[in-house]
Amino acid sequence: MKKEPSSLFSFEEYLKEAEAFHGFAAPGLLVGGFMVRKAMKHFPPGVLYEVLCETSKCLPDAIQLLTPCTIGNGRLRIISLGRFALSFFNKDTGSGVRVFPNPAKVESWPELNAWYMKLKTKHEQDLNLLIAQIKQAGEEILEQQSVRVKPEVYRKISRGPMALCPVCGETYPAATGSSCLACRGESPYVA
Amino acid sequence: MKKEPSSLFSFEEYLKEAEAFHGFAAPGLLVGGFMVRKAMKHFPPGVLYEVLCETSKCLPDAIQLLTPCTIGNGRLRIISLGRFALSFFNKDTGSGVRVFPNPAKVESWPELNAWYMKLKTKHEQDLNLLIAQIKQAGEEILEQQSVRVKPEVYRKISRGPMALCPVCGETYPAATGSSCLACRGESPYVA
Repeated sequence: MKKEPSSLFSFEEYLKEAEAFHGFAAPGLLVGGFMVRKAMKHFPPGVLYEVLCETSKCLPDAIQLLTPCTIGNGRLRIISLGRFALSFFNKDTGSGVRVFPNPAKVESWPELNAWYMKLKTKHEQDLNLLIAQIKQAGEEILEQQSVRVKPEVYRKISRGPMALCPVCGETYPAATGSSCLACRGESPYVA
Repeated sequence: MKKEPSSLFSFEEYLKEAEAFHGFAAPGLLVGGFMVRKAMKHFPPGVLYEVLCETSKCLPDAIQLLTPCTIGNGRLRIISLGRFALSFFNKDTGSGVRVFPNPAKVESWPELNAWYMKLKTKHEQDLNLLIAQIKQAGEEILEQQSVRVKPEVYRKISRGPMALCPVCGETYPAATGSSCLACRGESPYVA
């Protein structure tokens, strides 16, 4: 996995990778592949970039498959704004490029538009036609703009030393407070 | 990629996969591999599970590498509590198993403990020794407990129809309000 940028876009190969990683070749992953390719052009090999993704649906997996940026290594950040957009930015300056589908351009591809605007249920979609339109449209439907990510968004703050939580007994970042967040009311579990 | 559970734990093979996906074979990914294996035993093949991860550091990538659950397909959820723990749960009932390293057991492995409790800087770590201890300790340092994830955490809510934001002109979930979140003050970009 993790193709070199040059070999990224054998579309058929990417379909297979998407299926293996994501479970199926979801339309969002395929459109996302073209978005990643477009944004990546602004960062020549060797320049360290990070990625901000404005949705948690599908798109993060295109980024994780096709770039060195993952959720676990801290180079991919998701801020759930509900927009199908991503930004590649210089990790030291925050400057970068944002890529997103232009609704006016997507409109010329009826099946793609129906998916993008959620005009059809999954059941009503013609998946083969949808994939064909995504492939044919490629980067044509995409727009880009220069952006600067806010320093408070991209700056990494070290969590500092660890401590043992006096309530659950587990390790947590001491800076969090006198006990861990889960033991201070944020537990996702039924007590 | 995405090994079958049976072939998951050729440790050396996993080291390579971790490096390819995450950038390097981070200790957290390696410990995480054993955590995933332990939790997975509670879900026989064919039973659909989802995963909740209590930290965004390293551990999510072990989950994404070794299970069908990813951030983009919605089967992996991260709630940043700062605890190095994960839960596999039944997606219909929320019942499952939580796995985490037991600090008292980790303590018997000095280099592993130094990493886990952040007693040494990366520069001071003996990475070879650390990896050897992680491999040797395996599941021995892990604890498990039954959990039930709160319904409000695991239930998926459809975002409903999409709309065009009157401010930025992009597509967003109409239920969000009269304009998209980014245009309502949550933009991560410098104006």
